[in-house]
Amino acid sequence: MADALANTPGVAQKIAAEAIGSFFLFAAAIGAGSMAQILSGGNIGVALLANTIANGAVLYVLIVALGPISGAHSNPAVTFAFLLRQEIGAASSAAFVAAQLAGGALGACATHIMFELPVLQFSTKVRTGVGQWTGEFIATFGLVFTILVLLRNRPSAIPAGVALYITSAYWFTSSTSFANPAITVVRSLSDTFAGIAPADVPTFIAAQLVGAWVAVLVCRWLVAE
Amino acid sequence: MADALANTPGVAQKIAAEAIGSFFLFAAAIGAGSMAQILSGGNIGVALLANTIANGAVLYVLIVALGPISGAHSNPAVTFAFLLRQEIGAASSAAFVAAQLAGGALGACATHIMFELPVLQFSTKVRTGVGQWTGEFIATFGLVFTILVLLRNRPSAIPAGVALYITSAYWFTSSTSFANPAITVVRSLSDTFAGIAPADVPTFIAAQLVGAWVAVLVCRWLVAE
Amino acid sequence: MADALANTPGVAQKIAAEAIGSFFLFAAAIGAGSMAQILSGGNIGVALLANTIANGAVLYVLIVALGPISGAHSNPAVTFAFLLRQEIGAASSAAFVAAQLAGGALGACATHIMFELPVLQFSTKVRTGVGQWTGEFIATFGLVFTILVLLRNRPSAIPAGVALYITSAYWFTSSTSFANPAITVVRSLSDTFAGIAPADVPTFIAAQLVGAWVAVLVCRWLVAE
Amino acid sequence: MADALANTPGVAQKIAAEAIGSFFLFAAAIGAGSMAQILSGGNIGVALLANTIANGAVLYVLIVALGPISGAHSNPAVTFAFLLRQEIGAASSAAFVAAQLAGGALGACATHIMFELPVLQFSTKVRTGVGQWTGEFIATFGLVFTILVLLRNRPSAIPAGVALYITSAYWFTSSTSFANPAITVVRSLSDTFAGIAPADVPTFIAAQLVGAWVAVLVCRWLVAE
Repeated sequence: MADALANTPGVAQKIAAEAIGSFFLFAAAIGAGSMAQILSGGNIGVALLANTIANGAVLYVLIVALGPISGAHSNPAVTFAFLLRQEIGAASSAAFVAAQLAGGALGACATHIMFELPVLQFSTKVRTGVGQWTGEFIATFGLVFTILVLLRNRPSAIPAGVALYITSAYWFTSSTSFANPAITVVRSLSDTFAGIAPADVPTFIAAQLVGAWVAVLVCRWLVAE
Repeated sequence: MADALANTPGVAQKIAAEAIGSFFLFAAAIGAGSMAQILSGGNIGVALLANTIANGAVLYVLIVALGPISGAHSNPAVTFAFLLRQEIGAASSAAFVAAQLAGGALGACATHIMFELPVLQFSTKVRTGVGQWTGEFIATFGLVFTILVLLRNRPSAIPAGVALYITSAYWFTSSTSFANPAITVVRSLSDTFAGIAPADVPTFIAAQLVGAWVAVLVCRWLVAE
Repeated sequence: MADALANTPGVAQKIAAEAIGSFFLFAAAIGAGSMAQILSGGNIGVALLANTIANGAVLYVLIVALGPISGAHSNPAVTFAFLLRQEIGAASSAAFVAAQLAGGALGACATHIMFELPVLQFSTKVRTGVGQWTGEFIATFGLVFTILVLLRNRPSAIPAGVALYITSAYWFTSSTSFANPAITVVRSLSDTFAGIAPADVPTFIAAQLVGAWVAVLVCRWLVAE
Repeated sequence: MADALANTPGVAQKIAAEAIGSFFLFAAAIGAGSMAQILSGGNIGVALLANTIANGAVLYVLIVALGPISGAHSNPAVTFAFLLRQEIGAASSAAFVAAQLAGGALGACATHIMFELPVLQFSTKVRTGVGQWTGEFIATFGLVFTILVLLRNRPSAIPAGVALYITSAYWFTSSTSFANPAITVVRSLSDTFAGIAPADVPTFIAAQLVGAWVAVLVCRWLVAE
């Protein structure tokens, strides 16, 4: 996961991998939300279950396929953690985050086209309060903690580990684990089941980055070299 | 996945593997659809969830078991991608596609016998429109992209990667990811939950082949030798 | 999977492994059926989905844990297939089948105790007809085919392969894939969701053994040494 | 799984790993229960299904990530089994159990904060009777049996094996497989779907410890060195 832009041959490929990964990850979040909402006939438990499986499954695929290219962050909180660990530079981080946002926004638009919804939307879904912010802090702490511990102990288990962590956190956190600043921004551009009102975005992102930062500190002590 | 008919000992076995794989893959698509429709009591969310799990699971089994024999394409779009990459010849491709169609059609008939439905049927389920075609393009692009990237980076993850990609794409595409020209043809022969009206088949197949072709182009650049 | 009683140290352990494996496998079939029936509030789709997951999951566990001891057949149709391949003797086969039946019956009784049902019961659930018999033939063919092909090509994938095959076949066969003569007998002793009327047992077993026999023949040609 | 406090560098890390693992494991049990209860609209089958998936998934993550540090017991019944096998000392066992209880209680409190429930609660959910006690005995026997057999035969399969065992046992035991004395105590502190009345705790724990003890005896014979 710690690959960066250091070795010149492949910079463009790494950026592209982040964009393509985010395209599919964000399309899955919004598309599966739309599909589940349409099909579950008001049973939001079934909708969330389908959503969970779709998101966990695509996360495994992206990490196992794109991990060897860019590290398959597809998440600014993960890029931020590697920046704190000085395993990626500031310029590379900025390029990664831009690719994640651009690829993800394109994924949202493509999903709206697939489901014949307006391409440009703004969410009206309120997601706020101490409970939800605590949820995002715990969700992102757990995500970065899982990545950093596995990176040290069992790197080959990262794809399954991250996918199953998010599958679980979807249910045990009150906020359904966005745990990803780019996906938080992009989901504000979708007035569907998966949306979040633009005004609620900054606090979610703050909680996520604090969670990532605490995970970096804990792992520095827990799995030191 | 790139095995073809080149080495003579085993041509018949390779063709048979494609036919048997398609038999079970297509039986799963139609059979699980029928079963889910019967049992879900009108809750189509539960039906689709059961369908997803049944299809993803059988896909893993087929690829892990038959991959070492024929490459376990069971999908003309995948065979087409390897033809474009000149890793399989035209004659072998034609034989593979014929086996996929024949095995798959037999799977549909066997399923109709199991569920005591008329053996020969034609679907009346309309599946059309820009949203659905975009869905098939994205679904097949993602499938071939997953296969080609994994083939280069982590071939042992292909069975789980493909199975989980389809599990997810089932939900995040508006067309529930046929992503397979042979299954599209065969599902037009089943007037069940999983069917597609014959008139809607050609555009679906065109969208699938374009998706496969774009994936081959992108991967040529992204994971070049 | 082909271990038998040949090497003397461990005969008792092998028999015990078959009995313990069948105890949990059959408890899962009947117990998850009871639990799902109680909790699903009449939504049989949800009940079957829960059942599928419980059965597939325990199957993985049994095969991965007990495979190195006895081969983890827990299924007379599998033992029969290895007998046809002359990889297990007649006496060992008989001992295995006896252990599967005894362990499985104990698992059914334990489940009835757990769910506070009468310990001894007979099912009244009719399961008959050409559709269901075709279902059992296809289900068992596919199970033995999966085992024999993987045994030749990728033995380490047998636990996941078998578990996911049954997960899928549960849905795409009309009989929900008993695919196991011992479980068919034992489920006739449980008047629950998972039961089968005693009169319907012999035909189910015949269809299963024919399916296993055809799979042995096909694999002899498809994956010959 | 058999790591203990023997090698001095890392005692604090081991204790911390047990606490962090229990935090997430118990948060998943209670949080997913709360979420499922809220969202399933009274369909307890869907709620239990979501719960199962969330618990099984987080269990895989914890064992694969923290196993190399502390053994990832997160369960006094597992620690007790290793104590019986003299693979961990009495003092280390006590420290592990204290960490499991403390981390788990913190996980329950965090979950109550996330879901905006009172932080301190006591469950009123009655869970008693021979059926339930038999359920806990069988559930814990199977859990410890799975761990000990895999530890001898296929240690790398422990994370998936334990996760899938609990996923299945959730459904086939009448008590939904607590199978963990610490989680039993902590769930008495949560008046939610996942709770257990304090008066019912001691018998559950007794049944669990007897199950673990019998599994140690059986495995001593079944998979002897």
